[in-house]
Amino acid sequence: MPRFLKSSRKKTAGSAPGTLVHIGEQRTEKAHISLIDYTQDQIQERKVEQVEALFALRDTASTTWINIDGIHDLALMEAIGSHFGIHPLTLEDIVNTGHRPKVEEFDSYVYMVLKMLRYDEDAHMVVSEQVSLILGARFLISLQEAPGDVFEPIRERLVKAKGRIRTRGCDYLAYTLIDAVVDHYFYILEKMGEQIEVLEDRLTDRPDADVVQELHNLKREALYLRKQVWPMREVLSRLTKGEFDLVQEENYRFWGDVYDHIVQLMDTIESYRDMLAGMMDLYLSTVSNRMNQVMKVLTIMATIFIPITFIVGVYGMNFKHMPELEWPWGYGLVWAVMVILVIAMLIIFKKKKWL
Amino acid sequence: MPRFLKSSRKKTAGSAPGTLVHIGEQRTEKAHISLIDYTQDQIQERKVEQVEALFALRDTASTTWINIDGIHDLALMEAIGSHFGIHPLTLEDIVNTGHRPKVEEFDSYVYMVLKMLRYDEDAHMVVSEQVSLILGARFLISLQEAPGDVFEPIRERLVKAKGRIRTRGCDYLAYTLIDAVVDHYFYILEKMGEQIEVLEDRLTDRPDADVVQELHNLKREALYLRKQVWPMREVLSRLTKGEFDLVQEENYRFWGDVYDHIVQLMDTIESYRDMLAGMMDLYLSTVSNRMNQVMKVLTIMATIFIPITFIVGVYGMNFKHMPELEWPWGYGLVWAVMVILVIAMLIIFKKKKWL
Amino acid sequence: MPRFLKSSRKKTAGSAPGTLVHIGEQRTEKAHISLIDYTQDQIQERKVEQVEALFALRDTASTTWINIDGIHDLALMEAIGSHFGIHPLTLEDIVNTGHRPKVEEFDSYVYMVLKMLRYDEDAHMVVSEQVSLILGARFLISLQEAPGDVFEPIRERLVKAKGRIRTRGCDYLAYTLIDAVVDHYFYILEKMGEQIEVLEDRLTDRPDADVVQELHNLKREALYLRKQVWPMREVLSRLTKGEFDLVQEENYRFWGDVYDHIVQLMDTIESYRDMLAGMMDLYLSTVSNRMNQVMKVLTIMATIFIPITFIVGVYGMNFKHMPELEWPWGYGLVWAVMVILVIAMLIIFKKKKWL
Amino acid sequence: MPRFLKSSRKKTAGSAPGTLVHIGEQRTEKAHISLIDYTQDQIQERKVEQVEALFALRDTASTTWINIDGIHDLALMEAIGSHFGIHPLTLEDIVNTGHRPKVEEFDSYVYMVLKMLRYDEDAHMVVSEQVSLILGARFLISLQEAPGDVFEPIRERLVKAKGRIRTRGCDYLAYTLIDAVVDHYFYILEKMGEQIEVLEDRLTDRPDADVVQELHNLKREALYLRKQVWPMREVLSRLTKGEFDLVQEENYRFWGDVYDHIVQLMDTIESYRDMLAGMMDLYLSTVSNRMNQVMKVLTIMATIFIPITFIVGVYGMNFKHMPELEWPWGYGLVWAVMVILVIAMLIIFKKKKWL
Amino acid sequence: MPRFLKSSRKKTAGSAPGTLVHIGEQRTEKAHISLIDYTQDQIQERKVEQVEALFALRDTASTTWINIDGIHDLALMEAIGSHFGIHPLTLEDIVNTGHRPKVEEFDSYVYMVLKMLRYDEDAHMVVSEQVSLILGARFLISLQEAPGDVFEPIRERLVKAKGRIRTRGCDYLAYTLIDAVVDHYFYILEKMGEQIEVLEDRLTDRPDADVVQELHNLKREALYLRKQVWPMREVLSRLTKGEFDLVQEENYRFWGDVYDHIVQLMDTIESYRDMLAGMMDLYLSTVSNRMNQVMKVLTIMATIFIPITFIVGVYGMNFKHMPELEWPWGYGLVWAVMVILVIAMLIIFKKKKWL
Repeated sequence: MPRFLKSSRKKTAGSAPGTLVHIGEQRTEKAHISLIDYTQDQIQERKVEQVEALFALRDTASTTWINIDGIHDLALMEAIGSHFGIHPLTLEDIVNTGHRPKVEEFDSYVYMVLKMLRYDEDAHMVVSEQVSLILGARFLISLQEAPGDVFEPIRERLVKAKGRIRTRGCDYLAYTLIDAVVDHYFYILEKMGEQIEVLEDRLTDRPDADVVQELHNLKREALYLRKQVWPMREVLSRLTKGEFDLVQEENYRFWGDVYDHIVQLMDTIESYRDMLAGMMDLYLSTVSNRMNQVMKVLTIMATIFIPITFIVGVYGMNFKHMPELEWPWGYGLVWAVMVILVIAMLIIFKKKKWL
Repeated sequence: MPRFLKSSRKKTAGSAPGTLVHIGEQRTEKAHISLIDYTQDQIQERKVEQVEALFALRDTASTTWINIDGIHDLALMEAIGSHFGIHPLTLEDIVNTGHRPKVEEFDSYVYMVLKMLRYDEDAHMVVSEQVSLILGARFLISLQEAPGDVFEPIRERLVKAKGRIRTRGCDYLAYTLIDAVVDHYFYILEKMGEQIEVLEDRLTDRPDADVVQELHNLKREALYLRKQVWPMREVLSRLTKGEFDLVQEENYRFWGDVYDHIVQLMDTIESYRDMLAGMMDLYLSTVSNRMNQVMKVLTIMATIFIPITFIVGVYGMNFKHMPELEWPWGYGLVWAVMVILVIAMLIIFKKKKWL
Repeated sequence: MPRFLKSSRKKTAGSAPGTLVHIGEQRTEKAHISLIDYTQDQIQERKVEQVEALFALRDTASTTWINIDGIHDLALMEAIGSHFGIHPLTLEDIVNTGHRPKVEEFDSYVYMVLKMLRYDEDAHMVVSEQVSLILGARFLISLQEAPGDVFEPIRERLVKAKGRIRTRGCDYLAYTLIDAVVDHYFYILEKMGEQIEVLEDRLTDRPDADVVQELHNLKREALYLRKQVWPMREVLSRLTKGEFDLVQEENYRFWGDVYDHIVQLMDTIESYRDMLAGMMDLYLSTVSNRMNQVMKVLTIMATIFIPITFIVGVYGMNFKHMPELEWPWGYGLVWAVMVILVIAMLIIFKKKKWL
Repeated sequence: MPRFLKSSRKKTAGSAPGTLVHIGEQRTEKAHISLIDYTQDQIQERKVEQVEALFALRDTASTTWINIDGIHDLALMEAIGSHFGIHPLTLEDIVNTGHRPKVEEFDSYVYMVLKMLRYDEDAHMVVSEQVSLILGARFLISLQEAPGDVFEPIRERLVKAKGRIRTRGCDYLAYTLIDAVVDHYFYILEKMGEQIEVLEDRLTDRPDADVVQELHNLKREALYLRKQVWPMREVLSRLTKGEFDLVQEENYRFWGDVYDHIVQLMDTIESYRDMLAGMMDLYLSTVSNRMNQVMKVLTIMATIFIPITFIVGVYGMNFKHMPELEWPWGYGLVWAVMVILVIAMLIIFKKKKWL
Repeated sequence: MPRFLKSSRKKTAGSAPGTLVHIGEQRTEKAHISLIDYTQDQIQERKVEQVEALFALRDTASTTWINIDGIHDLALMEAIGSHFGIHPLTLEDIVNTGHRPKVEEFDSYVYMVLKMLRYDEDAHMVVSEQVSLILGARFLISLQEAPGDVFEPIRERLVKAKGRIRTRGCDYLAYTLIDAVVDHYFYILEKMGEQIEVLEDRLTDRPDADVVQELHNLKREALYLRKQVWPMREVLSRLTKGEFDLVQEENYRFWGDVYDHIVQLMDTIESYRDMLAGMMDLYLSTVSNRMNQVMKVLTIMATIFIPITFIVGVYGMNFKHMPELEWPWGYGLVWAVMVILVIAMLIIFKKKKWL
């Protein structure tokens, strides 16, 4: 899981709004541009080296999907921006990776930003990346922080022309991308659910301090997920309601489907949070139970032995005149007294249900 | 009660939306199809082996209830889907058993999905199953995961022509099915209420660690029920408000009745949750009370015996020159001092209300 | 106070909706019917043996108040139902005593259901009973579970023709009944407030385990009251807003007055809940304070005596060659060392503010 | 601060609505009536003995402010009521001092009720009193429980004709009265804030049991204030929105100003509540910290001395055949062993960071 | 961070509304007035000594930004107020530094008030100051408590004519000022996030009492920030929705951008609050864990040594007739018994998983 608290905004306060400043992990690698241009009948897929090669495709009748890995390349961003008519505030949002998911309509495009979460199977960690989508009439631009994404199956489906995907236009393509992102959230939540189950079993078996630390981490991660998923609800609700002209009415039902998924995700996250809170309570009560147990043992031991240790101390005194010491049955008598005392104590404890 | 955390969605991320993938417990048995076709005057009830036998009934004037146990049979699902004109997204929802209750209107039908909970008297467990209803103009299709349901009394009433049921159309039939499901929720809640009462008595009698574990389980189960019942509220609210053409106005009042039941269920679940939280508090304060009691005993014992044990230790020393040891009344004096000390201690404890 | 968790619904799941099944405490006594029929000028009050005697009064110009104690008499219920044109769902609601307060409009009447709470001065307990009101154009039927209610002063006022009551119609009569019920809630809350004050004093004086148990009980009872009062708010809000034709506009202000009382009741209940939560916190912190106190005493005693007990142990050893034992001032020296040690300890404790 | 739980309603349940019953502290002193009657140019201020003297002023063109201290004088109330055309329900509300702040419009007047809080500098206590305002077209009646209020500066301003007050009509006068009441809330909150600050310092310096008690009291008082202020928000929101004809549009902005103050008050009260909750947490963690500290000291002392006390016990035994006792370096050896043991213990504690 | 609880309102209760009374830190220095007057082509920036010099600029076609440091100069305030047509209630709000952020429309201007937070790098403290903005058609007046603000970069951009700032009018200038203030909130939150991370690491490494104190402080500060930021949401929401004529439609998108930032700030503050609450839980469970650990050590030591210390005590008694003392292998036997006892204890502890 990602560290929760990343410092998300380092723009020099007071700089002119719309000034491009990349905010996020420092990167130096070259940005990659890949292009898929298709109609129902034909498709071309290729890497693009020069950004100018894209410009011709803006207004063609074919659907154009431009994917850019590397939003830290500000020159590239500005070139794209000026050619595709992107508003300066949108460009500023794209290069600021600390953004909250949102959707905004501009004159010639709809801008969407969301978080893509991928589970890195090697590192056993979740990788979080910001994805911006610019949905135009005949093109869709997706902008990512780094190479590697969850869109591979979509590329395959496009090439193989499986399903509705080649015929339904740019907004349907945007929907499939967002659907893929949201599907991955389910996968992440499943992983998390497994961790919670493992932790719950450990809580009953051997509740130690590590469990608390892990509980705390899971709570933080649930908090992080909630922060990412919650605003998606509003985004998709607006997309479903036909607020945007660029989203075709025939595709509303699909957006509604993603909306349902988001609601289900929120439900699950809230359940997780409730469960984690319940587990914390369980842990605390287990610890205080154990403490009680420990205290009882100590108290029983001490309460039994303290009085008889005092008695043997008495007869360890060296007074000249201690008549009991002379009695022939004195030693036996002391033992008898002590045994009776111990038995009495044990009966009392039995009654108090401490044994 | 079902395990709370079932991994609810395993669709390969990125697969085309609408691709049928069964998500849920793996099943291999053959799907069962049963058919009840009736008008006010006549009724036929039979098992159907070939799905094609159903197709003729779609548009007849009689009311047709098709019940299918076994949504894992994807070929069957697709046959039903294509013949009855079911949208691919609906089919996808039907075979995904991790769904949230919802209602959706399509061109020719209303789709409803909800959870059916049955208390298995033998296993002393609650069995949860997803039920989908497709309400058409002249037919109702109910789709379940496995054989066994709560609809038996309805089948009887249909056959015996008791009450309004044979005259009021498909939507009334859908209402009776949902009413039966909701009635079972009350039964489950009653069972849960009994468990809570038993637990509460145990909490006062002998609060041990098991009680906490059971409290935790009950809290989880209340959470699970809440997650299932909460969205039903919205579903029924929409059915009551006449949003759907296929629901007849004369039946609104019946749907409103189920809505009232759902609200009452939510009330009860919230009460249970509050009560369980209160019981946790009670348990914790009882434990800390007991700890206090134990500590007091220990402290009283230790505080009384520690000083006098020291005194007897003093006169156990072997110094050559210890005048007290020679005194004839030394031993008696030491006893006197010790008795006074103990009495003084007891008085102090009395004043501090520790005794 | 009533047991919180009464199993409220035992209808055989799947039975036809509208089938009359009495749900509640089992009763066998005969149902009582009393009748008050009045115009501004005259009034008759009498017991009715045969239900048929009521039927003539349904459409007379006089205002007719029929009160029935004993909803378990299903034959009576059905007779009333069929004559006064009561919907089967209403009848079902009337005989099910586990209902949530609500108001519903039907073609010829308005149906209201609420809980009547009475403080039984002998048993020092609150008795809860479900009251249903059927408000027609010229009649009002009130249905109770058992004899005994809070309406006696209203009967007197009717007979003595005090105030507006004889001139303002059926809906005003319904209002006075509900006002009487709500007034009794205030009385119950006052009793509860007194208990809370007594408990709060005890909490400061001698906080023992019983206090926690009583706190828990009060919390449960507050929860129960809240569950009864909360839906009344919606009921009265709807009655105030002129949603029902049978409620005359000139009486809106009176309903609004009851609505205000309900809001005030909710305020008070919420305050009680907050106070009880605060008292629980206070109790827990008091307990942990005391534990701290006890531990300090133990630690002080142990820490002072443990080292000097060790010292006297040393000189109780029987080694042949222990030079100190031979010293003439050895014994005195040991005492000196021990006294210094104890004083040092006391100074340290003083500094740590443990004394 | 006032006792939180005053039994606020003692009306005999079932008495006719609108029957005047004074509810509140029992009072016997005579009611005082004072009158200020003014136009822009002239003003008269005087005590009134006979209520009839007021009647002539109801419809004069001048603005008339009648202030009555002593709502327990029911005969007076009824005289006022019948002459000024006050609705019976309003009169009932006026004499019931357990009311929630509210505003209600009647045919010829607007009725407002709120709580006036005054800090009694002598008793170091807050005095709470209910104030009712009846705003007519040409008169304003203010009704209080007892003499003494926060309106003195307003009387002065009226007489000295300072500011807008003489020209803006009855509703502006009502606004200045409410503004004065709300201003006093700020003063009370400031006093409370000071107490919280003092308590917070004490919490860090010497957290004892009294602190908890005071925290509890402050929480209760914050609860009480919240209960009084919260409904004011709705009252003023309605006054601001032009819902009432008797409130002139040119004065809306002034009411809006009081509304802002109420919102600010709520903010502050919520902050106080959050802070008090935080302080409770802080206290509890401090206590458990101290307990930990105490336990460590005890454990260190016990763990160091218990083994060596055992050793000296061993050589205090009186067996005939104990070779070590004969060894010339036996005593020295024992000391060496004990010193090594203690040093080892200390090193272990150091590692565990207990020292 | 500022002290949370500053007594924010000290107006003499009852003084005429609109009377100017400065509320806030007492200041004596002279107020500073600076003026920037610009069109797209030219700009003049200068200090102004006499307030009258400003008056000429009110209605010129150029955009005039008047910045005043020192709202405690009431004479100046009144001069400004009367010349620029400021409502008395606005003036009262400006000089009362305890205000909640809000926006209000008046006939000829829009009044906004908000809190400016600056991190003082020298004092490592946050300085809070109230800023009021009066947005007229051709002028913008900003009023601050003291010299020093976050607007320096804006002044530079104005002079250097960078970006859109010189062409977009007064409302755009107001937006840049507010944007600068909000940007600084992010900076403050980042600082706070860093502190939380440091504290979280300390919590795991060495959780001592100071950590709790710091947690408490951070919680208070988060509370303070929330109180400042929360009302900004409503302010900006209203500015975005085109409610005010003085805000040009072409600038809505910019205000919307600030609104997004505020929402993001709220998200982050809520996350911080959740995290701090989680850390408190973590701390408490760590403390109770440690206590448990300590108790176990004590109990193990005591339980092992108490019985064997008793045994050696027995044989330290001085009875004449103690046969064991005479046995030649008595001493060895005692040792054997004790070793067996200790081993048995250790085995028990092992089973109980205390070791």
